[in-house]
Amino acid sequence: MLGSSFGTIFTITTWGESHGKGVGVVVDGCPAGLSLQEETIQAFLDRRKPGKSRYSTKRTERDRVQILSGVFEGHTTGTPLSMLVFNTDQRSKDYSEIARCYRPGHADYSFDVKYGFHDYRGGGRSSGRETIGRVAAGAVASQLLKALGIKLYAYTRSIGPISIRSFSQDEIGNNSLYMPDAEAAKEAQQWLESCMQQNNSSGGLIECIVHGMIPGVGDPIFDKLDANLAKAIMSIGAVKGVEIGDGFAAAYSTGADNNDAFTLDEQGRITKLTNHAGGILGGISDGSDIILRAAFKPTPSISSPQKTVTCSGEPTEIIIHGRHDPVVVPRAVVVVEAMTAITLADALLCGMGSRLDNVKKVWHYD
Amino acid sequence: MLGSSFGTIFTITTWGESHGKGVGVVVDGCPAGLSLQEETIQAFLDRRKPGKSRYSTKRTERDRVQILSGVFEGHTTGTPLSMLVFNTDQRSKDYSEIARCYRPGHADYSFDVKYGFHDYRGGGRSSGRETIGRVAAGAVASQLLKALGIKLYAYTRSIGPISIRSFSQDEIGNNSLYMPDAEAAKEAQQWLESCMQQNNSSGGLIECIVHGMIPGVGDPIFDKLDANLAKAIMSIGAVKGVEIGDGFAAAYSTGADNNDAFTLDEQGRITKLTNHAGGILGGISDGSDIILRAAFKPTPSISSPQKTVTCSGEPTEIIIHGRHDPVVVPRAVVVVEAMTAITLADALLCGMGSRLDNVKKVWHYD
Amino acid sequence: MLGSSFGTIFTITTWGESHGKGVGVVVDGCPAGLSLQEETIQAFLDRRKPGKSRYSTKRTERDRVQILSGVFEGHTTGTPLSMLVFNTDQRSKDYSEIARCYRPGHADYSFDVKYGFHDYRGGGRSSGRETIGRVAAGAVASQLLKALGIKLYAYTRSIGPISIRSFSQDEIGNNSLYMPDAEAAKEAQQWLESCMQQNNSSGGLIECIVHGMIPGVGDPIFDKLDANLAKAIMSIGAVKGVEIGDGFAAAYSTGADNNDAFTLDEQGRITKLTNHAGGILGGISDGSDIILRAAFKPTPSISSPQKTVTCSGEPTEIIIHGRHDPVVVPRAVVVVEAMTAITLADALLCGMGSRLDNVKKVWHYD
Amino acid sequence: MLGSSFGTIFTITTWGESHGKGVGVVVDGCPAGLSLQEETIQAFLDRRKPGKSRYSTKRTERDRVQILSGVFEGHTTGTPLSMLVFNTDQRSKDYSEIARCYRPGHADYSFDVKYGFHDYRGGGRSSGRETIGRVAAGAVASQLLKALGIKLYAYTRSIGPISIRSFSQDEIGNNSLYMPDAEAAKEAQQWLESCMQQNNSSGGLIECIVHGMIPGVGDPIFDKLDANLAKAIMSIGAVKGVEIGDGFAAAYSTGADNNDAFTLDEQGRITKLTNHAGGILGGISDGSDIILRAAFKPTPSISSPQKTVTCSGEPTEIIIHGRHDPVVVPRAVVVVEAMTAITLADALLCGMGSRLDNVKKVWHYD
Repeated sequence: MLGSSFGTIFTITTWGESHGKGVGVVVDGCPAGLSLQEETIQAFLDRRKPGKSRYSTKRTERDRVQILSGVFEGHTTGTPLSMLVFNTDQRSKDYSEIARCYRPGHADYSFDVKYGFHDYRGGGRSSGRETIGRVAAGAVASQLLKALGIKLYAYTRSIGPISIRSFSQDEIGNNSLYMPDAEAAKEAQQWLESCMQQNNSSGGLIECIVHGMIPGVGDPIFDKLDANLAKAIMSIGAVKGVEIGDGFAAAYSTGADNNDAFTLDEQGRITKLTNHAGGILGGISDGSDIILRAAFKPTPSISSPQKTVTCSGEPTEIIIHGRHDPVVVPRAVVVVEAMTAITLADALLCGMGSRLDNVKKVWHYD
Repeated sequence: MLGSSFGTIFTITTWGESHGKGVGVVVDGCPAGLSLQEETIQAFLDRRKPGKSRYSTKRTERDRVQILSGVFEGHTTGTPLSMLVFNTDQRSKDYSEIARCYRPGHADYSFDVKYGFHDYRGGGRSSGRETIGRVAAGAVASQLLKALGIKLYAYTRSIGPISIRSFSQDEIGNNSLYMPDAEAAKEAQQWLESCMQQNNSSGGLIECIVHGMIPGVGDPIFDKLDANLAKAIMSIGAVKGVEIGDGFAAAYSTGADNNDAFTLDEQGRITKLTNHAGGILGGISDGSDIILRAAFKPTPSISSPQKTVTCSGEPTEIIIHGRHDPVVVPRAVVVVEAMTAITLADALLCGMGSRLDNVKKVWHYD
Repeated sequence: MLGSSFGTIFTITTWGESHGKGVGVVVDGCPAGLSLQEETIQAFLDRRKPGKSRYSTKRTERDRVQILSGVFEGHTTGTPLSMLVFNTDQRSKDYSEIARCYRPGHADYSFDVKYGFHDYRGGGRSSGRETIGRVAAGAVASQLLKALGIKLYAYTRSIGPISIRSFSQDEIGNNSLYMPDAEAAKEAQQWLESCMQQNNSSGGLIECIVHGMIPGVGDPIFDKLDANLAKAIMSIGAVKGVEIGDGFAAAYSTGADNNDAFTLDEQGRITKLTNHAGGILGGISDGSDIILRAAFKPTPSISSPQKTVTCSGEPTEIIIHGRHDPVVVPRAVVVVEAMTAITLADALLCGMGSRLDNVKKVWHYD
Repeated sequence: MLGSSFGTIFTITTWGESHGKGVGVVVDGCPAGLSLQEETIQAFLDRRKPGKSRYSTKRTERDRVQILSGVFEGHTTGTPLSMLVFNTDQRSKDYSEIARCYRPGHADYSFDVKYGFHDYRGGGRSSGRETIGRVAAGAVASQLLKALGIKLYAYTRSIGPISIRSFSQDEIGNNSLYMPDAEAAKEAQQWLESCMQQNNSSGGLIECIVHGMIPGVGDPIFDKLDANLAKAIMSIGAVKGVEIGDGFAAAYSTGADNNDAFTLDEQGRITKLTNHAGGILGGISDGSDIILRAAFKPTPSISSPQKTVTCSGEPTEIIIHGRHDPVVVPRAVVVVEAMTAITLADALLCGMGSRLDNVKKVWHYD
């Protein structure tokens, strides 16, 4: 399937434009019997809501999710979950300029070439609202992982030049930038202030950690766990790079430094002394924490004048008005977490039949 | 499909282990009428051959490819291409140590957990020989791209601490490290010498450029062109990071610096003044060069002693004997190029029906 | 993707239970630029509505469709179409008996084994309401086929022992059984009366004709056009058999009788003197009408007492109360048409790249 | 994936033409730890070999299979199985006539329209030799089913007007027509003699029974077990119809007659008093025997003169020389069995995660 679907067994299909009637997602392949409430989904969605801080757009979106199918008496039924959020703030008046010409750094031009057409109402399908479906589906995936003892959390690692220097998991939810370092968060806020004063915007880094990962998950060759994670993360708008474990730093390392020695933990189980690999060896989880990072480019919508061309091919200048985040990173933290959870849920379900003994365990009831 | 297949219309399925009877690939969905000779495939395969320099393993592999199906009178027929390389050097004697314990940095342990089993004969399915199928398929994809005016080339950007400082496309084939900078290549060779003397190995970076890319290719949301490229590249063994255009640097940039202004070229066609985006906007090609980079970790097989555990869970030490490249990067250059070509070929075929006028052009013969 | 999705490029994903909040479908991969109105979809849905005759259930369903995304200014945008019908009549009181035991001929038991669970509210996901999503998607597919000059129509060929003996396309819409033979329709109505009087139900046959089919569509081997049609049609609840062209009769024929001789039509184009093949040779359309037939079993919900077991495994008897069609065939006519249209739309889009000259035509704009 | 692949987890990809270098199949997704020998595969292939009776073509094919990968020390490793049969009898001289014009009942014309090309050497990809890959893969699938206690067998139910009137499973292998009724087999042989004397050919029916089927396998909606079986069977060349259980007869039945009452067997397990449904309810197996039938058209290659047109569009006459079976049914028996086994194996693996308790059983090792 193309474009709007992801996954092989645990599959999600998102739909909706920023200025249409709503956005949503269909999740198919979720096992029956998983406890699931609308509130769990809503809690995830609230984390990507704008308006939580002055660094995110002022559009008043309610983003109230409805589960339309697939849940009966508080548990999943095994049939598709359809989740829907109606768009409530659809003012189109700010977007006349966008109809006229191509915004630099946006998908207007490439959509136009592909479809002979671009939906100028705030980005259409390539708007940030598209991530609502991902996050709702990610909430379901996270519930499934939780039921298997797997926990994951993402956070902002850097905004512009400001990187975290300390790590406190509790701090992540304390600041509106989702940084695990209160001091760095303050500096990053000052940096964003200065960006806004200069009608400019900033990029940043998000990191995601998966704790309690089961070893033996993922497929060799093309469906390596890290390959599918890379696709999942790179498919988030504005992501320009993905790395696992030491990532790009590994290119500058040596085998003696980069290899993780195997050892035994207190319970006598096999583990690793270090985790340069980020929890994946040969495309298959090794039981250590999975660690990944995503690089986000700066918000392309800036209100200083920019050179561009009109849709009919005339050179022109554009000044983008309207309300725009100076950085997408804080709102994208939950999106990275969601896509990671979805990828792992699918890999866990796809890998159940890798060994004949497991196949017998499920189907041969004796 | 799991594991061993890649693509939606232009699909490849690889098979084979390093010490089985052979390795190969089935390419399905290649359009009929493409000129294709065994020599074209062989030329690609020769670029990944070991033994071209003293920095690659000494195993004497002939790697002579046979096209078993799908070509008739020098052209593709539209039916699957089956390509096969028999393994000729299958000495197993070096691998007794590997049968006993898990090599750090290798997939032995994770395979064992997944399958209840690991093929200790030189890595089995996770061996570098698995890339033979990818490269053969990439040769076919490159032919298809060439027929559409698209050219691509990859090269070594850095090895360990040595990065290129100048760029000459002609130089790439002149040195055994495939670097476009002769001086850097010399320094990198010295660096590799010192690694080998210390029984150590090195990582490195590969860059790939796609020139003449058609705009409007790729799908929004999950099958973004960059998302599928990220998966394709991250699925190559030893890759730990992928980036497009400015990649991770974009995380430290600002909107004013990172946005690429649209302009018109001499022929009045829309183009960009800069290319920070690396040729992809919103997941769809914009007609500029596609630029991507892959970070490769150091070869995990090093001959200094390493801590590990045996397959039965006893702490032990391993010294890996045998012939191993101190760096995988030079041999992986053609693999990165192949995976890029395969991804683009598939995206081009998948996107033919994005506009009704194109659908009519193909099917409505009037 | 499993279960709820169908297609490779033109893909549909349905969701919803008979007694949940609603049912719907997401259609992805529809080309941009196709004229599409809610009324066109609604007209298709109205053909499957109950209450059009006394032989269909009396539940008063409004089944008013909403297009939530993918259409802008009256044309498809190339992004997913989300279509939704809210359930308005969700009285659960009739279904207490179903919660207690397994209805013969229904999916209660097999769902229970699979999911550890069955949604006893009127069939849940295996209810006839699930076809609403198929029909809405089929309306879109039919629009696409129409734009390419392809027309299709389905009708009731027989109900119980009553088969059509004459054929008038205009008559199909004139009687509530969608039979192209007014006299047979009257007899079939009498047959259904007698079934109802005996608390019994009836099976029947639906035939579908595709006119103006483009030759060269479909893939050899597993994605033969007839193979995908067989799956599409057999996936409709209550279908127990599918045939193409002469179908089962071909098993009793000889080569001399069954082969269709090629000839030229008045315009000098290649055509066939007969059409025993039903428009498909080797899995690929040959330009003749595609002809297929589906066998529907009798409605399993009958109000005479039937032996069964309870969910806890006690022998018991069940009498199914409530409103049930004595035959599903008339309401399923549009479902067969829809699934045929969806399969053909997908095959047309998948096959655009089968020849290099067509690939060049679309991507090489000179 | 298009055309040459089938399945979601247990996936097969076939390749090869009748007159190329060979034919083969790659099986991916087979669980590790399954005992597998070349002899097991060969035994299946021998059942489709020509030359076993005077009713099958005289081409002396050796069809010796080689397993090139995926097996280590007599067991599957979880990595792809590549199986290959070289073509040994590639005389092309008989096929000059086919290069000139389109054979009635063959895929020559439709291939030519699709690919701009047809491989005139004995049918190319649409030859009966394409089924070798299916049968080899089916042998693997059958091994997997056997390990789960599931057995299946297919046989000839009718040839031309001669149907079986009695059933003895032992008899199936005793006659070259694979009929479970020795007397009917004799009559069918006489019928085939008369067909050959008249340069004519015959159709026939194959039936397949799956015994010991596990209930709860298959997905509702589009991936119904019967829908996937219908696709699998209809994808075999020459099949024009598929039915499950009572099939087309159900269209003429009533609910009271067609419903299968649930009851308890001696062990107190739920079973059905009758099996009109053929072991599948709502797309999910119910534990009864799965029963399906396939209708095969007569061999289109007959040596009496037939009207047709040349490839350049001139009316002409063709007489097909060479060696051709007067009926494909006996050789196709093992193909029907193979496709059924492949479909079931995939459904079993896909369905392992339908319930959270099963997911926990496999992944939560406590």
